[in-house]
Amino acid sequence: MSARIPQVSVKRLPVYLRALSGLAARRVEIVSSADLARLTGFSSEQIRKDLAYFGSFGTRGVGYHTDALLERIRRVLGLHRDIAVALVGAGHLGTALARYNQGQEHHVEIRAIFDADPAKIGQAIGGTAVLDVRDLGATVRAQGIRLAVVAVPAAQAQGVVAELCAAGVEAILNFAPVRLEVPPSVHVENIDLSQALQSLAFYTALGANEHG
Amino acid sequence: MSARIPQVSVKRLPVYLRALSGLAARRVEIVSSADLARLTGFSSEQIRKDLAYFGSFGTRGVGYHTDALLERIRRVLGLHRDIAVALVGAGHLGTALARYNQGQEHHVEIRAIFDADPAKIGQAIGGTAVLDVRDLGATVRAQGIRLAVVAVPAAQAQGVVAELCAAGVEAILNFAPVRLEVPPSVHVENIDLSQALQSLAFYTALGANEHG
Repeated sequence: MSARIPQVSVKRLPVYLRALSGLAARRVEIVSSADLARLTGFSSEQIRKDLAYFGSFGTRGVGYHTDALLERIRRVLGLHRDIAVALVGAGHLGTALARYNQGQEHHVEIRAIFDADPAKIGQAIGGTAVLDVRDLGATVRAQGIRLAVVAVPAAQAQGVVAELCAAGVEAILNFAPVRLEVPPSVHVENIDLSQALQSLAFYTALGANEHG
Repeated sequence: MSARIPQVSVKRLPVYLRALSGLAARRVEIVSSADLARLTGFSSEQIRKDLAYFGSFGTRGVGYHTDALLERIRRVLGLHRDIAVALVGAGHLGTALARYNQGQEHHVEIRAIFDADPAKIGQAIGGTAVLDVRDLGATVRAQGIRLAVVAVPAAQAQGVVAELCAAGVEAILNFAPVRLEVPPSVHVENIDLSQALQSLAFYTALGANEHG
């Protein structure tokens, strides 16, 4: 069933999760797709379609049970249990990611941090010690880690990723501005800050003036 | 014309740009959609469709002129001239973004950095001084800045964004984990690191095991 949920829908699930958590905290028991539309900015049609991928919970004219939908989305994402994440790269970006993650209440937690810099190895970010990147494969294997974040310079990224894949990692969030080669079974999501800024330029008059 | 290019296609343009820059540097004069597919990971069909939105440059059976296509995409994105960016928030994430941007060769440049912390104001990140966030609106107006990056805590984000919009900003890259209210004319792109990790959990066996 999971294979049938399109990637764009999977990306929206955490957004629904946050909206539903807010509603649950306020003890709102029933939520309509129109409510979710207001809270998330997605259309009601889009929301109903996304939620239908993993079975219909909505009652026409009534809505969804907040807690049931919350729990279902958590399970679909695998967040009903804690997921350990390895972070490779403890520079400014890696540190920001680790700190940010530590401040969140959710079930995806950065549990191991790696860097190549002797000055960083042995230091702690939040409560988590920075380990030597030479121990990356062994640690990921020993801890059964399946999810990793890559925040190393472009030149190091492919090597790190090859090691992560060999050690059993199945999904990678990559911030290095390079296209990574991975086995077909490994899912990579790229966040390229430079490309994000470039595509945003399109929406400024500086860009659009030239289109017509 | 610009309004007709879908957002998903706009997001792919910087990826084409990087591939084409690499080809141009190697003096490859003609490029096929199949070549671009190999370099970017998108399908040839997708690429031809994206490029057709702003006029066909390809010759059937031959391909695109690398330099002409590169220049066309730069113009569509508005990157044929330099675009100044304001960065709000000089924490670890903001610092990472500024340093990363400074190391890149492109036409979208972080030119003004703002923070509320007296210990950071007056310091420089790379060559750029950190300014008092109280001068945000005035500086953005004076410099005619249209594009901004928001890397402040969630509680501060909406206030910062209201000021940016009032000062004429048209596109915002937001890292704060909140849904921002902006006028309809302002384009917001959200990068939520916690949500990115949550959706990636879906692709690990820990998530998928529960789907079937």
